[in-house]
Amino acid sequence: MEKITSSKNQLVKTLKSLTRRQGREETGMFLVEGEVMIREAMKCGLAIKEAIAVEKQSEFAASLPCPAYLVPENIMESVCDTKSPQGVCAAFSMPGELALESMPDTIVALDGVQDPGNVGTIWRTADAAGFEALLLGAGCADPLSPKVQRSAMGSGFRVPFGQAGDMPGALLRLKGMGYSIICSDLGGTDFYSRSDPGKKYVLVIGNEARGISGETRSTATMLVRLPMRGGAESLNAAVAAGIMMYGLKMEK
Amino acid sequence: MEKITSSKNQLVKTLKSLTRRQGREETGMFLVEGEVMIREAMKCGLAIKEAIAVEKQSEFAASLPCPAYLVPENIMESVCDTKSPQGVCAAFSMPGELALESMPDTIVALDGVQDPGNVGTIWRTADAAGFEALLLGAGCADPLSPKVQRSAMGSGFRVPFGQAGDMPGALLRLKGMGYSIICSDLGGTDFYSRSDPGKKYVLVIGNEARGISGETRSTATMLVRLPMRGGAESLNAAVAAGIMMYGLKMEK
Repeated sequence: MEKITSSKNQLVKTLKSLTRRQGREETGMFLVEGEVMIREAMKCGLAIKEAIAVEKQSEFAASLPCPAYLVPENIMESVCDTKSPQGVCAAFSMPGELALESMPDTIVALDGVQDPGNVGTIWRTADAAGFEALLLGAGCADPLSPKVQRSAMGSGFRVPFGQAGDMPGALLRLKGMGYSIICSDLGGTDFYSRSDPGKKYVLVIGNEARGISGETRSTATMLVRLPMRGGAESLNAAVAAGIMMYGLKMEK
Repeated sequence: MEKITSSKNQLVKTLKSLTRRQGREETGMFLVEGEVMIREAMKCGLAIKEAIAVEKQSEFAASLPCPAYLVPENIMESVCDTKSPQGVCAAFSMPGELALESMPDTIVALDGVQDPGNVGTIWRTADAAGFEALLLGAGCADPLSPKVQRSAMGSGFRVPFGQAGDMPGALLRLKGMGYSIICSDLGGTDFYSRSDPGKKYVLVIGNEARGISGETRSTATMLVRLPMRGGAESLNAAVAAGIMMYGLKMEK
């Protein structure tokens, strides 16, 4: 396997750029870290383009169907933005995004969910609960950032996503296509007394501090709220999303 | 209000020591940061002992029913372990712990939940769902650490807790007192087909990586698993806990 020793090498620079949204958009690639995640991305049909590995992962890297290079530990650490890099990372072509017209029956929509850990955790839970797509609005953490993908633990490769610069407009179009639009709202119906949303629905999750925006909420066909006892005034966004996703999918 | 200007001041040293378990155990106090949390702790009947504040929070600090001191920003930052300290913090007497004999009807037990954010988030969700106590086993994050209390967002003052060095032993005693012991297990019954656990039950949440220990699981009266579709193999511990807490409390 060919060696790279300089941090000024063009491939190293390109891989580093993939930790930023601009770098991903310019190259059309995103970064996948670690053997388990690389295997999962390939299994999900994503195209691997280039890889780098440190000595202990050189055998795995050499087996990959793409050019692979051996690098010293310090270069690996400068590329991956984690404290304990797993010794191998690869650039993959960004997956195609779902258009609104091609959306499956059950969708989780994120209305300004900013924290990458929350976006990834919601993605992972959506996969487990059986939701079929994620729709990200403006102001959300970038779905292909390393932090989001790390929290998604492979669900980012399995559950397709789309992006909507204009979330209220996108939801209105989905409503026109027969989807129920479910928004959480403090003045909504008790989630456990909700009516049947039918076969096609979008569950909308709001920003961690501000919740769902007024314009987005105005598109709702159902306003629901999780009951809260005790003195608690709110729930963690990813926890609330998980409770509602499992509630909608598993309780009939 | 009296001023403290030296970081070698004894009160400053004492407050700093409260960010560590040993310091809390030696003094019998724990640290509460920020005006909102201090108000909430007092409202919940906890005894405030001493406070420090920077200039912008001096009026609030002076109104507190305890000795309060003005400190410069750098001392405040050295005491609080957050990047953006809220300008005021106070030492409170540690709340009394619940004995097993005094446990209420519905309990969340943590079997080695290590991450302070997870412990705090589970505490907050337990409060909202209506669980009445938290039982922490060996290996859990310290319930009175600033990180846990920050994630609990006040629920740490509202929902009482107990600690069990020997979790399996504690669960066996609770079982003898008529509690159902609900453990999640990959080989368990589908959570949505579970039988009624009755009025008194303990929901046991396991370690983030290893789950519930074998010895703890052997005390279970019900083994349940959350169904997972797609390729997801697991859920975030706090999300899974939230889904089961709300499921047990809200769905009949």
